[in-house]
Amino acid sequence: MSNPLDLIERAKKGDKRALGRLLTLLEEISAENAWVLERLSSESGRAHVIGITGMPGSGKSTLISRLIRAFRDKGYKVAVITIDPTSPISSGSIMGDRVRMQEHATDAGVFIRSVTNRGILGGVSLAALAMIEAFDVMGYDKIIVETVGVGQSETDIMNVADTIVVLTMPGAGDDVQALKAGVFEIGDIYVVNKSDRPDAVRTYEYMLFVAEKEALGRGGSWKPLVIKTSAALGLGIRELAEAIERHLSYVRESGEKERRLLARRAHLMKLVAVRALLGALEEVMREEGESVSKVAKDMRGFYDEAMRIVKLTGKRVS
Amino acid sequence: MSNPLDLIERAKKGDKRALGRLLTLLEEISAENAWVLERLSSESGRAHVIGITGMPGSGKSTLISRLIRAFRDKGYKVAVITIDPTSPISSGSIMGDRVRMQEHATDAGVFIRSVTNRGILGGVSLAALAMIEAFDVMGYDKIIVETVGVGQSETDIMNVADTIVVLTMPGAGDDVQALKAGVFEIGDIYVVNKSDRPDAVRTYEYMLFVAEKEALGRGGSWKPLVIKTSAALGLGIRELAEAIERHLSYVRESGEKERRLLARRAHLMKLVAVRALLGALEEVMREEGESVSKVAKDMRGFYDEAMRIVKLTGKRVS
Repeated sequence: MSNPLDLIERAKKGDKRALGRLLTLLEEISAENAWVLERLSSESGRAHVIGITGMPGSGKSTLISRLIRAFRDKGYKVAVITIDPTSPISSGSIMGDRVRMQEHATDAGVFIRSVTNRGILGGVSLAALAMIEAFDVMGYDKIIVETVGVGQSETDIMNVADTIVVLTMPGAGDDVQALKAGVFEIGDIYVVNKSDRPDAVRTYEYMLFVAEKEALGRGGSWKPLVIKTSAALGLGIRELAEAIERHLSYVRESGEKERRLLARRAHLMKLVAVRALLGALEEVMREEGESVSKVAKDMRGFYDEAMRIVKLTGKRVS
Repeated sequence: MSNPLDLIERAKKGDKRALGRLLTLLEEISAENAWVLERLSSESGRAHVIGITGMPGSGKSTLISRLIRAFRDKGYKVAVITIDPTSPISSGSIMGDRVRMQEHATDAGVFIRSVTNRGILGGVSLAALAMIEAFDVMGYDKIIVETVGVGQSETDIMNVADTIVVLTMPGAGDDVQALKAGVFEIGDIYVVNKSDRPDAVRTYEYMLFVAEKEALGRGGSWKPLVIKTSAALGLGIRELAEAIERHLSYVRESGEKERRLLARRAHLMKLVAVRALLGALEEVMREEGESVSKVAKDMRGFYDEAMRIVKLTGKRVS
């Protein structure tokens, strides 16, 4: 393994291999390599972090691929972090997605990296947050974080992006129940993809209604935008890129960007803490396995047993 | 609120409203109501817990609806727990899914309940595990836990089902990379749904290969089964129900069922512990907000700061 400082220097000069190895190192933040992230963070904070979420099938990867091109045309360097959820059925579609973006693989100004779950709660988010700092230092102007928008650890990271783009499509969003359930609450920009489909108008109008409602409910002066696209046909991409730029201006001027940067880093620290706590819990659970199994037989006193485990874990880390 | 003992008695007599209220109570296990779960668990352990996972679009809900009927025809009472992930784009499809199963809503021998994320890591699994105990006591023979198979907390619960059914469909599973990534490792039974589609043969053969490979890799004498279905057309459902019954015999005879019951309950205790630990962490993070924000500015000493937070959390709970 090369010296991390050396990797940083080479990555700064555009060496993608060096950057790749640096990212691998950042996948597992530990007491030993924490200084590498410290070093990177001392120079970061400039990039625009864009979270893009949408269910499988909503055309996310095609849209992102188009968006990469639009950003490249403006001269931006673009990094994409794809969150690969732990999935027993992680399918051809996810594999295919990455392929779809590979048209950009030979572009020196584009870097695509996927982060897979490492079996630890919050592990994905932690790795992604660390990688954001690295891409930032390496001069990537736009850092797109792609998630499927399902599951705690995946949506988690959305809360700390500078700009959140929620992808929907005809037939998916036009459900008043979805609104009631408060599921559309996080978007700064809503995209109705596949808007060439005949039922798109209804979804679009519905999303306008959602945006309107949210503008009222939220603090701040940003009113969520709704953009119609057809990623497959390449329609609406420029409008989307412009909407994203407009939101960037907003978060910059409102001081929201600085706030989100600090929130992102605070969240990174929290995830390091979560990992340490859950690691200690695992150890205690193993050591107390016999006692736990005994209680599991009829569950008598299970709550006290859980609290005893908590106490032992607390002692271990304090 | 009625007396929980009263709810249990009424639920045992088939009062669905009482059972619903009991489940609501179990959604939030606390020191105060832990005795209710203890009480239930003292009588549970008989039911067959079936985890069914598959990506959105794989036809899960239609398949489950068919399966409910097949089980009902055999005289079984059936409960379904639908895990609703926190999703910013939790879509019409998920809402629609529940509707699809509603044909069984008036059947006294069927109970469908969805569990939504409450913003706590592992919260969904905890609620679902508690509900399993209740359904068990109320005489539900088959307890189907449906997840979208994405995200830590959702796949989590799969590890503690008696029988795990993984749903795939043509075009999704026939990717050798998916196998390499080890994503097909958990199924006891693989279902190739939508097998009326022309490309289904390839997927079926691929899944046979997966099953073969897994039979070699795993301990135990169970060789994963591969079943072709078309839930929409109602094909292969009886075969699937029979495969599930065959697996039940296997886990019973091998002692695996008893082991999975204990693992399930140990996991429940662990999740109670996780919740307590993370709750304390949240508190500490809030109290130390100023210090954390300061460190977040340039991240100098962020790892030590995280460890300091861990120590404070440990002290709080020990």
